[in-house]
Amino acid sequence: MGTTRREEILDAAMDLFAEHGYRGASLDQIAERVGLTRQGLLHYFPSKKKLLIALLERREELSREHLVADHIVEKDWPTQIAEVVAFDREHPALARIHTILMAESLTEGHPAREHFRDHQRAVREHIARLLTERYGDRLPSGLTTQAAAVALLALLDGLQQQWLLDREQVDHPEVMREVWAILLGPAAP
Amino acid sequence: MGTTRREEILDAAMDLFAEHGYRGASLDQIAERVGLTRQGLLHYFPSKKKLLIALLERREELSREHLVADHIVEKDWPTQIAEVVAFDREHPALARIHTILMAESLTEGHPAREHFRDHQRAVREHIARLLTERYGDRLPSGLTTQAAAVALLALLDGLQQQWLLDREQVDHPEVMREVWAILLGPAAP
Repeated sequence: MGTTRREEILDAAMDLFAEHGYRGASLDQIAERVGLTRQGLLHYFPSKKKLLIALLERREELSREHLVADHIVEKDWPTQIAEVVAFDREHPALARIHTILMAESLTEGHPAREHFRDHQRAVREHIARLLTERYGDRLPSGLTTQAAAVALLALLDGLQQQWLLDREQVDHPEVMREVWAILLGPAAP
Repeated sequence: MGTTRREEILDAAMDLFAEHGYRGASLDQIAERVGLTRQGLLHYFPSKKKLLIALLERREELSREHLVADHIVEKDWPTQIAEVVAFDREHPALARIHTILMAESLTEGHPAREHFRDHQRAVREHIARLLTERYGDRLPSGLTTQAAAVALLALLDGLQQQWLLDREQVDHPEVMREVWAILLGPAAP
């Protein structure tokens, strides 16, 4: 009751933000796509900013950060990280909205700026903590766990961006598997 | 003659696109900032799209792709690649406009989409060719040169994004130096 309509609005917002960016898509367009008036939509989400934040929170629930959290402690890390990249490939709408909104958040006064900054910090700290629990301050390769967390997040975001621009490319999950195996080091599982 | 005014317009466009995105900044705003009418501005750049393309071409002349081309064949690659990352840190306006416009180009019908796709392809091919000339198909670490080119570009873009969101972070040039040294492999220079 109400939940389904909320989901419909979030789906429409995701489509329209992916097509035009957050700033380029209007509440009127989103309302129209789900057959509501603007006032009707505001009953579910009291502002465009609140709708954006709800959308970002849902995207995260669905996306790779959960996969990272779930799988990074499994025995074969490079394969698990490759699966995170493969997940993006199977959910291009999630990948696209993430890349577009994260970069758009760098424009002046964007309501998602703090969200992305805080979220990236949390992901880096989480990865670094998991790596440190297993390896101490340095991986078998010699890389510090802090640098490894920064590099892993950079690789995930950078590979996603490349793939979204050019889907005819090489096998990104396999690139990630090989790169992460080398960065962990020869003695790592 | 005319060149200086062109540069002024490009500077103003870079500022306004960085503040509001390409779609969020109008020709009228850009013209106003340099003391021209819209018609006066159109004398130098006949359309907003042409202004965008001129801006992207100038950005590339100034930015890291040239550093990559210049330095990647020098003897200490990890240090040279770290200098590419450091260059971004010294030119945050160039880094910001690059990240914002590249992601915005993923929205529907964006005029820079092909530019970024083609440019990324060219950079990957260039890096892969330089690596192959020195090492053959695989680096001393075992990574294929094609995968290494994909990973290097992903790291550059991903580190730039992280730094723009959170400038209080760790030493990214040093992270890049360490990561790239490990990815090249123990026998690499």
